[in-house]
Amino acid sequence: MANQLSGVFAPVVTPFRDDGAADADRLIAHCRWLLSHECGLAVFGTNSEGNSLSVAEKIDLIDALIDAGIPPNRMMPGTGACALPDAVALCAHVAKRGCGGGLALPPFYYKDAGDDGLFAFFASLIEAVGDERLKLYLYHIPPVAGVGFSLDLCERLIKAYPTVVAGTKDSSRDDDNTRAMLERFPGWGVFPGNETDLAAMVRHGAVGTISATCNVNAPAIVDLYKHAAADDAADRQAKVNAVRTAFSRYPMIAAMKAVIAKAHDDPVWRNLRPPLLPLPDDQSAALHADLEAIGYTFAPAGS
Amino acid sequence: MANQLSGVFAPVVTPFRDDGAADADRLIAHCRWLLSHECGLAVFGTNSEGNSLSVAEKIDLIDALIDAGIPPNRMMPGTGACALPDAVALCAHVAKRGCGGGLALPPFYYKDAGDDGLFAFFASLIEAVGDERLKLYLYHIPPVAGVGFSLDLCERLIKAYPTVVAGTKDSSRDDDNTRAMLERFPGWGVFPGNETDLAAMVRHGAVGTISATCNVNAPAIVDLYKHAAADDAADRQAKVNAVRTAFSRYPMIAAMKAVIAKAHDDPVWRNLRPPLLPLPDDQSAALHADLEAIGYTFAPAGS
Repeated sequence: MANQLSGVFAPVVTPFRDDGAADADRLIAHCRWLLSHECGLAVFGTNSEGNSLSVAEKIDLIDALIDAGIPPNRMMPGTGACALPDAVALCAHVAKRGCGGGLALPPFYYKDAGDDGLFAFFASLIEAVGDERLKLYLYHIPPVAGVGFSLDLCERLIKAYPTVVAGTKDSSRDDDNTRAMLERFPGWGVFPGNETDLAAMVRHGAVGTISATCNVNAPAIVDLYKHAAADDAADRQAKVNAVRTAFSRYPMIAAMKAVIAKAHDDPVWRNLRPPLLPLPDDQSAALHADLEAIGYTFAPAGS
Repeated sequence: MANQLSGVFAPVVTPFRDDGAADADRLIAHCRWLLSHECGLAVFGTNSEGNSLSVAEKIDLIDALIDAGIPPNRMMPGTGACALPDAVALCAHVAKRGCGGGLALPPFYYKDAGDDGLFAFFASLIEAVGDERLKLYLYHIPPVAGVGFSLDLCERLIKAYPTVVAGTKDSSRDDDNTRAMLERFPGWGVFPGNETDLAAMVRHGAVGTISATCNVNAPAIVDLYKHAAADDAADRQAKVNAVRTAFSRYPMIAAMKAVIAKAHDDPVWRNLRPPLLPLPDDQSAALHADLEAIGYTFAPAGS
């Protein structure tokens, strides 16, 4: 099995300047805070507004991060695209720059491609990239993408490309599916798509998690991961889940950005790229009240 | 109202060479056949595998078609993209080259953007392009895209950008929605997304249709459009629908390509780009038997 990554990863939120451009400087600063808490960087995930970025923007941001000293082996950039040439371009760059892996959505426009069609897509992709450094994590998020990876398709891809198909992020919101992956593919890099059952999943063999709320709660989630087998794991899990529940009452990306903006006293952080929108002021106030009520504070260095 | 297009348009199937590249020469030849039957060119629609092409490929194909003498005012290229910069690039090119319009999917990854988010996307898009030649047709196909244009959103966009938002392709498979558009937005360019009720829809004010099967049945569908009010319209409609029904039993794009390939004795036409796959031989044989049984033949010039 090809997996070499483990631990807690954030689908890193992408800052946008007031003119709408992606903001490499703020992204680098946020990545440094995440890394300082031992949280890896799944840039360009769903919660990164990754699908609102062009291929060229993603390639430029990968380069900006690495050029700023962010270690590529702690990065798992989203490489999903509807068009095969776009996926090839992204995966080739991720491999060339030595990223730990690529988080690979299936092509998500045509909903009835089926396992044979998806297998053909990934076979074409992997062969076109032709780089032994490429490691892919299959991003299974059917509630958003409308297309997913069946267990049979995972098995076909692992068998055909054992050194490439390193693992998965399972955002199916179906614990049974995650458990089935862990059972059927021992040694595979299975990352549950959120932390709500992290301690139990790690005890069952999950290698970590890739979860939105890591952007604003990395220290606690990393501690939970490290202490998944400890006596107080249930208490830690409950505290982590209370934070997630608070954020989940609001549009998640906008809510996280509102909290980051407030902590840094930097309103630019509130921006999202259309079609997603910033959290309205009244909801931001309600969110911060909710968070205060559970004793949560976000205090990144420099804020 | 900004609409200047009418009649029958094909979401032109995109040929792919055996090496996987889009094939401009075969595309040009197919477009010439469609134009010779007075059928317009909605290149890069759903049935064109439009979302399997990169932005650069689409721009290159638009240029290749126009450079080959295809009149741009008969073209309505798909301009949809999940990422705003991609949609801006495509729309800017479509406007610059004088295309009759752009067929604009909503950004389709984030399913809960809502009317406000989609309005913000199109406002940003139209203002970023900043070209008075831009005409957009809102592509409403929620069964595939997972995101659609509500009637209220259409109204907001028409009111805000009356010279740009020229019409719609309604592929909702909901005739009530099409009729509601025709009633609420008189003079708007409403194209039903298939021809199965074309005669009645034209009598209700639809300006034409944009339908997959035009790729293989343009002459009959154009005749039906022209004779929508004739005494024999019901007979014409029934014959056209029988052909569509035959194709609809199979994956539509693969089926149309199989028929085009056979007519030209050119197996390259059978290729699809992953994640979509060619029609298997047994299904191709069954399809051709079905078509023969209803007296259908596809005989493009040169075949």
